Amino acid sequence: MTDAKALVVFQPSGRRGRVPLGLELLEAARQLGVGLEAPCGGNQACGKCLVRIETGRHDRYGIDCRAENASPAGEGETALLTPRQLEEGYRLACSAKVQGDLVVFLPEATRAAAQVVRKDARELDIKLNPAVRLTDIELNKPSLEDPTADLERLLAALEVEGQSGLRPDPFMLRELGGVLRKGGWRAQAVVYQDRELIAVRPAGAEPALGMAIDVGTTTMAAYLCDLATGNLVETASMMNPQVTYGEDVVSRISFQMHNEGGLKKLQSTLVEGLNGLVQKALAAASAKLEKELAPGDILDMAICGNTVMQHTLLGLDPEPLGGIPFAPAHHQGINIKARELGIQVNPGAYVYVLPNIAAYVGGDHVGVILAEEPQKHDEMQLIIDVGTNGELVLGNKEGLICTSCATGPALEGAHIAFGMRAAPGAIERVKVDPDTLEVDYKVVNREAWRSFSEPKDMQVRGICGSGILDAVAELFRTGVVLKSGAFNPEQPSRRYRVNPDTNLKEFVLAWADETSLDRDVVIDQKDVREIQMAKAAIYSGCKLMLQRLGLKRPDRIKIAGAFGLHIDRTLALVMGLFPDCPLNQVETVGNAAGDGCRAALLNLDKRSEAEQVARKVQYLELSLEPVFQNELVEATQFPHMNDEFPSLAG
Amino acid sequence: MTDAKALVVFQPSGRRGRVPLGLELLEAARQLGVGLEAPCGGNQACGKCLVRIETGRHDRYGIDCRAENASPAGEGETALLTPRQLEEGYRLACSAKVQGDLVVFLPEATRAAAQVVRKDARELDIKLNPAVRLTDIELNKPSLEDPTADLERLLAALEVEGQSGLRPDPFMLRELGGVLRKGGWRAQAVVYQDRELIAVRPAGAEPALGMAIDVGTTTMAAYLCDLATGNLVETASMMNPQVTYGEDVVSRISFQMHNEGGLKKLQSTLVEGLNGLVQKALAAASAKLEKELAPGDILDMAICGNTVMQHTLLGLDPEPLGGIPFAPAHHQGINIKARELGIQVNPGAYVYVLPNIAAYVGGDHVGVILAEEPQKHDEMQLIIDVGTNGELVLGNKEGLICTSCATGPALEGAHIAFGMRAAPGAIERVKVDPDTLEVDYKVVNREAWRSFSEPKDMQVRGICGSGILDAVAELFRTGVVLKSGAFNPEQPSRRYRVNPDTNLKEFVLAWADETSLDRDVVIDQKDVREIQMAKAAIYSGCKLMLQRLGLKRPDRIKIAGAFGLHIDRTLALVMGLFPDCPLNQVETVGNAAGDGCRAALLNLDKRSEAEQVARKVQYLELSLEPVFQNELVEATQFPHMNDEFPSLAG
Repeated sequence: MTDAKALVVFQPSGRRGRVPLGLELLEAARQLGVGLEAPCGGNQACGKCLVRIETGRHDRYGIDCRAENASPAGEGETALLTPRQLEEGYRLACSAKVQGDLVVFLPEATRAAAQVVRKDARELDIKLNPAVRLTDIELNKPSLEDPTADLERLLAALEVEGQSGLRPDPFMLRELGGVLRKGGWRAQAVVYQDRELIAVRPAGAEPALGMAIDVGTTTMAAYLCDLATGNLVETASMMNPQVTYGEDVVSRISFQMHNEGGLKKLQSTLVEGLNGLVQKALAAASAKLEKELAPGDILDMAICGNTVMQHTLLGLDPEPLGGIPFAPAHHQGINIKARELGIQVNPGAYVYVLPNIAAYVGGDHVGVILAEEPQKHDEMQLIIDVGTNGELVLGNKEGLICTSCATGPALEGAHIAFGMRAAPGAIERVKVDPDTLEVDYKVVNREAWRSFSEPKDMQVRGICGSGILDAVAELFRTGVVLKSGAFNPEQPSRRYRVNPDTNLKEFVLAWADETSLDRDVVIDQKDVREIQMAKAAIYSGCKLMLQRLGLKRPDRIKIAGAFGLHIDRTLALVMGLFPDCPLNQVETVGNAAGDGCRAALLNLDKRSEAEQVARKVQYLELSLEPVFQNELVEATQFPHMNDEFPSLAG
Repeated sequence: MTDAKALVVFQPSGRRGRVPLGLELLEAARQLGVGLEAPCGGNQACGKCLVRIETGRHDRYGIDCRAENASPAGEGETALLTPRQLEEGYRLACSAKVQGDLVVFLPEATRAAAQVVRKDARELDIKLNPAVRLTDIELNKPSLEDPTADLERLLAALEVEGQSGLRPDPFMLRELGGVLRKGGWRAQAVVYQDRELIAVRPAGAEPALGMAIDVGTTTMAAYLCDLATGNLVETASMMNPQVTYGEDVVSRISFQMHNEGGLKKLQSTLVEGLNGLVQKALAAASAKLEKELAPGDILDMAICGNTVMQHTLLGLDPEPLGGIPFAPAHHQGINIKARELGIQVNPGAYVYVLPNIAAYVGGDHVGVILAEEPQKHDEMQLIIDVGTNGELVLGNKEGLICTSCATGPALEGAHIAFGMRAAPGAIERVKVDPDTLEVDYKVVNREAWRSFSEPKDMQVRGICGSGILDAVAELFRTGVVLKSGAFNPEQPSRRYRVNPDTNLKEFVLAWADETSLDRDVVIDQKDVREIQMAKAAIYSGCKLMLQRLGLKRPDRIKIAGAFGLHIDRTLALVMGLFPDCPLNQVETVGNAAGDGCRAALLNLDKRSEAEQVARKVQYLELSLEPVFQNELVEATQFPHMNDEFPSLAG
């Protein structure tokens, strides 16, 4: 890469700018703020970052775009693209490098749409015991007779109020003099955990805000709370901007390992995102409360995420999480000043990062446990948190056992031919008519199902996680897919065919005229296999945990995560995604991780609970279980325990 | 100021560079690294930053330097410069602005010379009880059966060694994984105050270094110590780079008040200097020990300075220190991570900033008390720390009383016609023959006195603090100056005259041919008055403290500070600088502030002592004493208690 630069224009958005010669188009897009899907993290593995070089003169931009202005197609590209695609100028953005001025077209499927994030907050009954305490104080003005320093003057007054032995945050001192003098020697002291004076504000200042953030691999959800009342003031969510560096945690670990300064990039990108989330929540709350709220009003934070997210947030090398023996850098929760992470809230505010249980059972799962409290009940609960990774916990007040299972990203729509995130245009629900084998479906952000719509109004772009699960279950229920997972060759549907390009059997969900892609959206044999593997992973994880505790079935199943809100429980049981359990004992609990994080924000006792739980819960390493592989293979069948399923009767 | 720039060349050094149009020459010099004296901090008050615009073509630099390339002379300049100077192109660098390409000549007197810093370390007998403790640890390697996190693995091992309940520094975690894996699961844990795990290093790593720094208004002295042995490894000193923003604390407070972002500039400039000092000491120590030492080897720091220095270091607004009632932001010592100040040592290291007693009795004076320990003795000690400000403490184990007196900067060579810092060319010792009234003198960095030298070898540039005091005392002793401080009009010396320009009486110390200035170096009536005021301030401060304790005289006088090393005790007593005391009970104790800071670095007990002393010592506000003004006026006479001076006999 040299200092020389070239002009790159992305179509159809028209976003453009000068980037260094030698830069990959994927990075150019990122630098210019162009949303571009790259699920594999730019490893030339998924072929999803398809772009087209628009050769020829583009007078509008003053560009003569010649083919050689992009680097020649690399090995990865010749493997993943057809000769015809290459001929037509299609390239992978993760491979093609800028060698001169370029006009680059992003096909519909490549464009990253704003995801519809569905992490609504539940009503929570949380006891209020926040980490910060506010005290309004009036001081005597200093005089030549009593020139006692500002700090000692304030500490003496706080001591009268019963708050003694407080350590001052040196950054608080930077505000102290101004606040006292402007406020006529009245001020509000913000004390953290009865031990540190972290901030001073004008007397009577309100609100005192706290923020809990659940940092998912794909999405982040923030909960802005009033620390004085415990009320939820506002929620906000956005994509985790690390997505640019890889769709799943493994791609991000790999990005860090193979790029100089990769960890720093992951960290700063995430923190940038968190700051955006803070701004977004504050703006919404300001409008709602008709009062200008500032980052300085946020006096405490709690953050949870999987172990890789938490490691990258704290700037800890995630590489050991990616290989045997999967030892994290730390288990215990971390208290760190937000400013030391670059998070722009009150300079004195702390962030409490929840403890990790294991490399693949992180603070977010601790959050789930905090919210659902299986350790406080007699009934045996099984909680399944399905995301890119599946995290499972089983137990009651006698003890908890947990594990993680590599579901793969299929359940979130990745590694699927037409997989995508739950963004507008994604098929999220599917029904198949058992008689005609015709398909009805619904897309994200459109109320009307296909059967009530004009084909052109559907604008299908792909299939998201819940849509895939729905589709596979329906295909099985209607006999299109056999128990083994193979397509039934004996079926008459006109939607069933063999793709001449991929040579895979496939089933059409949406015809080309219902899409914005100009081609049929299908589920193919490979997709079904991915779902089989995912469901097998979850099922066998659950089964081995039950075995370990000598149980046949749990008393209750809770499905956590945004994913859980959108799957049909009956279908899930039909497919054998979860172990046998009465249907009325299966419930979805929404973003329990976020709820638990919010509980930790509002209640110090929940933080102690988090630390205890994280220490006490027993981690089951599936790969050490001799029977695991057999269980896994067996569990790939649909459904696993067909006959016993009460759901089929219920 | 615009974005446009112009080329500015400083002569005779030839340093040059492009600076924005509209910039003052003083700031241009700073940006280009040209040392330029500006004692008043660029307030157009002292007239010391004299430069000459060299109009005409300068082909060497491709500059056509026209008079209008500098802004027209401002009010401050027409007041401070003679019409002839203005005609010859002389300007004040703090006023003249760049309006085009310039060649600027710095007269000898304007050039800031590298000061000879004389803060040698004394042999100290300090008990060793450092804040950090090192423990070499060997851990079991993690496995699939035991994937315990790195941190908990280490904490468990430390608990076996009796170190429990340790809080981890999140930044330590960033190193932990790498150190453990590279070191084969052996490592050295660095624990701070038995409560925080601040760093991990390879097992057996050494040395463990600590650094104590005395931040003076003018100079900074650093002591690099081995925390394992207490040995002084290396010393280093340099100018406080804040000097660019004003010679004394009042100018710096004023700079902060009148410049947007001034505090941040003061802070970052100081920290830059501290980082330079760290590098300098490490480089010298590396050479001495023949071992590459790195900033990461410094595991603990202690810093002391006057209250204004400490405030600007911590980023605290010093403005309240500049006006009644002079309340500081804090008294207590501050523990802050070096990284939070931008000081580049081990990322986990803390800085202990010593407590302040009052706005003008800071952590450096606490350092003096720590080193001299008057509070542990029966004898009544008076310790005088003379710098830009005078700090005085009096007492014994029954109690201490302290005060500060505004000596003004005269004793450091400022506000004196030919005053300068103790740099090469500064007259530092003076003798006057009582019969001939001829003068002999010595300059800094030259062993031979004037009487043993050729005139041209003296290269006098000015007079430093000790030289001025010497000179005034000698002039009084020989009758040139009367008891009132006025020059004796009845004296025959050819060196005595009235300056036609200033209309002041003056006495020549060095003739033009002995200088590098091409003019006579003199002491004038105003200089003598400045010294009178300074000595009156010290003397009356001492006297009021003695009165307060009901004493006539102290048992012992200690003179601290580099200044103390260079004044003649007899002359000081002759002049009435200090109260009456047997000469053999007067001693100089060098840089006691630095010694005390070093003690605090090496011994936690000394930090507790510092906090106790700072809380218990009674501060005497001189302006509240009804008799102070009278005392002050009376004390301007030479000498104050002439007859009783045993020194005259001794």
